[in-house]
Amino acid sequence: MKATWIWYPGDFEIWLGNKFNNRRTERGAMLPPFWKQDSHWPTVVFTKSVEMDKNEDVSIFAEGQFNISIDGHLRPTLPSFFIPAGRHTLAVKVWNQATPPALFIEGEHVVTDATWQVTYEDKIWIDEEGVAHGAGIYVPVGCGHFDKSSTPPSSFRMPATEALPVGYERCDETGKMRDRRLYDFGREVFGCLKIKGLKGTADIFYGESREEALDTEHCETLDSVSSYDSKFCLEPDTYRLDSKAFRYAFIETDIDTCYDDVAVDIEMAPFDAEHSGSFHCSDEELNSIWRVSARTLELTTQEFFMDGIKRDRCVWSGDAIQSYLMNYYLHFDTDCVKRTIRQLRGKDPVTAHVNTIMDYTFYWFISIKQYYDYTGDLDFVREMWPRMLTLMDYVLSRTNTDGMAEGRSDDWIFVDWVDFPMHKRGALCFEQLLLLKALETMAFFAAIFSRSTAINATPSVSCPLCSDSVAVLRTKIKSTFWSDTHHAYLHALEDGKRNPQVTKFPNMFAILYGLATPEEQRLITRHVMLNPDVPPITTPYMRFYELEALCQMGLHNRVLKEMKDYWGGMLRLGATSFWEKYNPQEQGTQHLAMYGRPYGKSLCHAWGASPLYILGKYFLGVRPTKAGYEEYEVQPMLGGLQWMEGEVPTPFGKISVKADGHSVCASSDGGHGWLIAAGRRVAIEPGKETIIKI
Amino acid sequence: MKATWIWYPGDFEIWLGNKFNNRRTERGAMLPPFWKQDSHWPTVVFTKSVEMDKNEDVSIFAEGQFNISIDGHLRPTLPSFFIPAGRHTLAVKVWNQATPPALFIEGEHVVTDATWQVTYEDKIWIDEEGVAHGAGIYVPVGCGHFDKSSTPPSSFRMPATEALPVGYERCDETGKMRDRRLYDFGREVFGCLKIKGLKGTADIFYGESREEALDTEHCETLDSVSSYDSKFCLEPDTYRLDSKAFRYAFIETDIDTCYDDVAVDIEMAPFDAEHSGSFHCSDEELNSIWRVSARTLELTTQEFFMDGIKRDRCVWSGDAIQSYLMNYYLHFDTDCVKRTIRQLRGKDPVTAHVNTIMDYTFYWFISIKQYYDYTGDLDFVREMWPRMLTLMDYVLSRTNTDGMAEGRSDDWIFVDWVDFPMHKRGALCFEQLLLLKALETMAFFAAIFSRSTAINATPSVSCPLCSDSVAVLRTKIKSTFWSDTHHAYLHALEDGKRNPQVTKFPNMFAILYGLATPEEQRLITRHVMLNPDVPPITTPYMRFYELEALCQMGLHNRVLKEMKDYWGGMLRLGATSFWEKYNPQEQGTQHLAMYGRPYGKSLCHAWGASPLYILGKYFLGVRPTKAGYEEYEVQPMLGGLQWMEGEVPTPFGKISVKADGHSVCASSDGGHGWLIAAGRRVAIEPGKETIIKI
Repeated sequence: MKATWIWYPGDFEIWLGNKFNNRRTERGAMLPPFWKQDSHWPTVVFTKSVEMDKNEDVSIFAEGQFNISIDGHLRPTLPSFFIPAGRHTLAVKVWNQATPPALFIEGEHVVTDATWQVTYEDKIWIDEEGVAHGAGIYVPVGCGHFDKSSTPPSSFRMPATEALPVGYERCDETGKMRDRRLYDFGREVFGCLKIKGLKGTADIFYGESREEALDTEHCETLDSVSSYDSKFCLEPDTYRLDSKAFRYAFIETDIDTCYDDVAVDIEMAPFDAEHSGSFHCSDEELNSIWRVSARTLELTTQEFFMDGIKRDRCVWSGDAIQSYLMNYYLHFDTDCVKRTIRQLRGKDPVTAHVNTIMDYTFYWFISIKQYYDYTGDLDFVREMWPRMLTLMDYVLSRTNTDGMAEGRSDDWIFVDWVDFPMHKRGALCFEQLLLLKALETMAFFAAIFSRSTAINATPSVSCPLCSDSVAVLRTKIKSTFWSDTHHAYLHALEDGKRNPQVTKFPNMFAILYGLATPEEQRLITRHVMLNPDVPPITTPYMRFYELEALCQMGLHNRVLKEMKDYWGGMLRLGATSFWEKYNPQEQGTQHLAMYGRPYGKSLCHAWGASPLYILGKYFLGVRPTKAGYEEYEVQPMLGGLQWMEGEVPTPFGKISVKADGHSVCASSDGGHGWLIAAGRRVAIEPGKETIIKI
Repeated sequence: MKATWIWYPGDFEIWLGNKFNNRRTERGAMLPPFWKQDSHWPTVVFTKSVEMDKNEDVSIFAEGQFNISIDGHLRPTLPSFFIPAGRHTLAVKVWNQATPPALFIEGEHVVTDATWQVTYEDKIWIDEEGVAHGAGIYVPVGCGHFDKSSTPPSSFRMPATEALPVGYERCDETGKMRDRRLYDFGREVFGCLKIKGLKGTADIFYGESREEALDTEHCETLDSVSSYDSKFCLEPDTYRLDSKAFRYAFIETDIDTCYDDVAVDIEMAPFDAEHSGSFHCSDEELNSIWRVSARTLELTTQEFFMDGIKRDRCVWSGDAIQSYLMNYYLHFDTDCVKRTIRQLRGKDPVTAHVNTIMDYTFYWFISIKQYYDYTGDLDFVREMWPRMLTLMDYVLSRTNTDGMAEGRSDDWIFVDWVDFPMHKRGALCFEQLLLLKALETMAFFAAIFSRSTAINATPSVSCPLCSDSVAVLRTKIKSTFWSDTHHAYLHALEDGKRNPQVTKFPNMFAILYGLATPEEQRLITRHVMLNPDVPPITTPYMRFYELEALCQMGLHNRVLKEMKDYWGGMLRLGATSFWEKYNPQEQGTQHLAMYGRPYGKSLCHAWGASPLYILGKYFLGVRPTKAGYEEYEVQPMLGGLQWMEGEVPTPFGKISVKADGHSVCASSDGGHGWLIAAGRRVAIEPGKETIIKI
């Protein structure tokens, strides 16, 4: 029996999320997010019923003060306790205000593991004789990765790998008594700068670009470290600063200060290269795009999937859902997906949209359906279900008189960063499409879970039967926003009037989410997606969905060209990771600016890595058709490439694909797959290569 | 300008409440309560708009990591910051996971004080230019008592006064090599035992009674302290244990261990004797009852009003409401009332009744109305209003099809500890009466606050207009429970049938809460309250309301006799504080037992101190008739005493009362009062003595 640390599900992520989100700094000042931060339950009870063949002494470790009871009787609080043979109910109550209460019990047969239950409220009542009755609401514990008594959850730290700069240049100024050096780490890194042998005080200015690091007045992040202060001292003579994102570090000291060496402890979530996705093809530029995309996603995969590693450094739902999808085609790190989904949701009561953004609430729901599609992990959905219900309650309590999601004061309607005028007033078609997909998600899982389960978990829930809502909303979106004149879904309904602006946003989602009929899809493709008069999308964020929609319309050749133009454009400007935004029209240092700040743009932003997803799902053509790849399709599309080969990770291992002008070929480690090509659909037998000649 | 520490309102109490409620031990094991414990908001923003005539440098102290912004621009995080002349918006964001984020700013003109606002969610949204819009829900900060930068809220500790034992006896056993001494502190104390000059290890067994301390196998609390361990070391050679309640401490050591001296640091909430209530009369026993009641209330007035100081040591709503009422006639410690009300309510979402007990939820509402009656402090009610709404939502979401409060699985229906069979199934008349009073409280304040205010504070609230609910429920209680046959309100409605049991509980509340007509009141008094066939009440808890009802019926002579019998009975058994329960029929050590445990009874229980309230309100006869004693009545009733005199604290000072067989006399420091006696009603002019001859 293997013991592991256990805690209240979601609480580890909420606590870690606060540490994570509050670690962002702007020129030295901390800069937490502006939404509600929750806390773990400070006092919880872990319990399990055991049946023992013989007596057993077990060791107990807890993060927090605790007590132990067996069959309702308190035992002395000692490092071990005795469980007599027979059937018993163990209960350990742990209180910890600062970090999540956690428990580790290690015996021969009794160990803490996923089979334990936990409550934050053991809701009992006492009779005249002092006998306790009743029980709280118990749920399965949270656990994972903390398998030693000496490494409890609060000790969590990202693994780090040391890397050295590729070189430095001296930037001394005439007449100034300062030592100034610009270190170049060769590519974007995320981690903790280390200065070895420091004697004196050093000021560090970080830059994702050379320009930023050298611009000490405007660079986004900076540090100061002194050997007279123990704050950053890691070991004698070595100082390690808090994590930052940078390629360049400009270090300024006065001439009395000296140091020997500079390095960085690079932090990234660990992954298993053996079980990761891959992609190679006849186009070297596309191979670079895939590699830099992979690097971008790896740098942004930390405790959680984060947006940009320099600025923000936050967990954002709209960014995260894209990271999840890319991740299903790269490292299949389902733990990080679950951590991020839990963190984003936080706790009840719901007082605002996820990240305060309405669209981001809807993405949160949708991401759970996608997680289920790729992993088949219903346990996680069951864990989230009560919080899905209360979040949907919040959403439905705020719809307008038409039953549509309309921004209220303090709701942020994001959609995208756009370079053209676009109102966000009234009921946006885009938001209704996301709401529709969120409701479909609820209806899908409500059909799986019995209604009674849901009601037990959250007695106050008023969420209507979502399948009805879905049909009503679907009809309403069509009748309200579709325009036969424009051959498009129009932008919004404002004060009862249609705003006839045509943007790509609702139209591409109408394709992706299956609202548009095949005829509408063709009209949209022609009159919106490929219409040069419709304002172009300039963020990789929405290009993700744009390219996906084009792929769904079979326009792989065009998508290939656009990837090479757009992502290739960043590479030609020297990108070592992909950016938050890229406008080919901009020149020189304009590429570094955003939000009115000269270096405000993030040069390593998760949503820049979408080629991972596009190439995996639409070129290699691998996608689950039954949850967790129990069934799946492989439909390779070369899109103009001479040949390509690649692998896609799945819960059971990998699916490998090869294609050229003569044949397509797939093999897999499990599941029931179909290879689709040349009008044929052939079963893929695990462990054997399946080929279709073209 | 005087600076003070500020925090999110209620969060100090929630954090302190967890420390407080988790400090209880049972034979060395911690024993937290079994209901949900909440946490402070870990990240909050404090803000204030200031208008400065000139530049100012201010010092800043925070509990937690923080940032400072002026007019939306971040400033360097330093121990002081500069505010230029002009109008500015200051905002300080503080993050603290372990203790409530708190702030202290000290300048010449800018200081943190009650005029600041705070939010846990500054809900903004960012536009393309990086400009922030929107605002969170800001509320006035919590503050009070922490007026020095060096004493932040987390440093809170109860004041302590050292006291020495009155003596000790040796209890060595023949043939055993152990040193055993029983220390007697002369009366019940609450505090930390100190052992001075300890060398070796001492085991301490505490007792509220001699029997308990000597019964090392069964005493409820114990400790062990060793000079080889720094855990309890206070200063060289002095060890101070965690707080306990006891009169006796039995200390056992082996003969190699020695110590010099034993003392106790007594902990109690501080009070101002100058502004406290008093009572003296011609009956010395009654004077003792008043003094021991006062001592009982003082011992149970700690960080919060707690129930019993030995066992439980928890904040219980049903106990607390009685402490509040007694307190209005003793020390008028409104801070402790507010702390306790905040702590009991905790945070949303509501997942169970207050302390898991349905009656206790209702008492919580009622206590706020009473607090307002005695203090006139509407600001506090306004602070609690959003949480009153959501708690009432919870209550109303769980009423049965008749609109009555009926216990659901896991709801604890307490009423009282009774020595006779009494079902708690179905809809109890007692519970409906409390619900009625709670709804009246909501309706009363809803009429004061505009509906819009309420809706803004809690958008999801579905609480119906409570004045309608009040009328409906009032009629329903009458028609359902009143029996002309029994001349009483019957016990319950079970499965659609009336349970015809007659108990005092609903009947005395029907008198107290004004449901019973004058005719019903007379019938109830004769057929229930004074009927020896109706099972007697044996807890001081419900005797509180029983005696109050008898006073309302003018039966002061009988009440005086009952007080002397019941509370006098405890005194005659040596009580130095009043007990959780007293049954005159029991003999010897039976008085110590409860909950099936030989020393399970608490010998110092707040609800034992009710004579303070009865004597102040119904004998001295002082009660506010307009909130905060803006108007009040003094209607002295000797109830058989030859003379009495006393004082009652009020927001404006005191009201003094004297009465004997010849005259009654009152004077006061403020308010508009009326002295009522001998059929007359005479205005009391502040500062002058008003007399009515009889």
